[in-house]
Amino acid sequence: MNLLLFDSNDMSGENEIIISGRRLKHLNNILKLKTDEQVDVGKVGGLLGKGRIISINEDEAKLDLNIYISPPEKLPLSLIIGLPRPKMLSRILRNVAAAGVKSLHLINSRKVEKSYWQSPLLQIENIHKQFKTGLEQASDTILPDIKLWQQFKPFVEDFLPNLLSGQRSFIAHPGNYPLLPADSNIATTIALGPEGGFIPYEIEKLIDAGCTPVSLGTRVLRLESAIDTVIGRQLIPQF
Amino acid sequence: MNLLLFDSNDMSGENEIIISGRRLKHLNNILKLKTDEQVDVGKVGGLLGKGRIISINEDEAKLDLNIYISPPEKLPLSLIIGLPRPKMLSRILRNVAAAGVKSLHLINSRKVEKSYWQSPLLQIENIHKQFKTGLEQASDTILPDIKLWQQFKPFVEDFLPNLLSGQRSFIAHPGNYPLLPADSNIATTIALGPEGGFIPYEIEKLIDAGCTPVSLGTRVLRLESAIDTVIGRQLIPQF
Repeated sequence: MNLLLFDSNDMSGENEIIISGRRLKHLNNILKLKTDEQVDVGKVGGLLGKGRIISINEDEAKLDLNIYISPPEKLPLSLIIGLPRPKMLSRILRNVAAAGVKSLHLINSRKVEKSYWQSPLLQIENIHKQFKTGLEQASDTILPDIKLWQQFKPFVEDFLPNLLSGQRSFIAHPGNYPLLPADSNIATTIALGPEGGFIPYEIEKLIDAGCTPVSLGTRVLRLESAIDTVIGRQLIPQF
Repeated sequence: MNLLLFDSNDMSGENEIIISGRRLKHLNNILKLKTDEQVDVGKVGGLLGKGRIISINEDEAKLDLNIYISPPEKLPLSLIIGLPRPKMLSRILRNVAAAGVKSLHLINSRKVEKSYWQSPLLQIENIHKQFKTGLEQASDTILPDIKLWQQFKPFVEDFLPNLLSGQRSFIAHPGNYPLLPADSNIATTIALGPEGGFIPYEIEKLIDAGCTPVSLGTRVLRLESAIDTVIGRQLIPQF
């Protein structure tokens, strides 16, 4: 946790927040903050800056805010992924938010187990919880956009062509395809199959919708690693 | 598990193996293999090919081997990482082996908790177990090289300059540095800090030993994601 994220529920005055629970534990046990010391803070969806401890004990911490810094740029990257099993999904949600991915579409696919769609993790407040953990890691305040598509066909036929229009779009697929280009700052959408991969029908539909097949090298990667690998090829420089 | 890995302990004849335990479970419950059906197999450190089921039940499976395919190329990539906590390390070991990283150096650093060095995961048979899970995922048979350096100074002063000689060498470090180049097929070594990062003294020593500072973008990544991000920039094409 490199950033103390707060939202309007934590505000106790115009420039004041009261923190309890998990975040308080971090202030007390990891950062060991005392009165008048400062910590990096950010408002969900808003600015970042410093919070000064007015008071802190085992029940709550009161902080005085001075926020004025814009959140960091997002990667111009949208991911379309076959819904993974919940345990992997929670890690993916954190990593995607930390890396600054702009939007994430979780889609159905033949190889997605139906039970995965019943996971409580897919409730929006739980998705946001994982996103926030990633934002705390990367000192960002802006939640990625997220959309769930429990039916493949309406997604790929009705929605996807519009999403991709005017954008560079790929599908990562094992085979003799060129590597995903390693460029920065070009708006890119990339589709990645679930564990077990997309079936041929789905690949065909994704290509029809505008996705060009590309390779992520010679090895079959786990979805989680494949996502970070894609992110590695879309990094934006610091200056 | 995309490959059934076996070693000489599993051999029951010149071209025959007997499998039990976890791998048998996979053959029975996931692949649901029957007599005369085939599965992709590979010998640890050796060739890949097909195994044909001679007999299979709940106790063991006997397979007839036909192996003749060379394992896939490794990435010409060596990683030097500050020892992470055991849970993260086991995922890293699997991912590194799956991605085809050539060698891995686990080093000490000021921010590495001393207790991490006591983890049973660091016993070579346990490291190899994690590596094999990665190899099973990526259909490879060659274990990455692994070295443990519980003392930073002898590593960086006595060993590292030789390791890096004639090689492209980097240290990933947050700051205003150029991005890690996204090239393929150039022998590269890259050092990544532990959780909490290298301390300035350590960075200085790594630079002295020949590592050029590079950035992995504008965000502070978790070590696990940083490694896959690095791998993403060093992919080798399929053709």
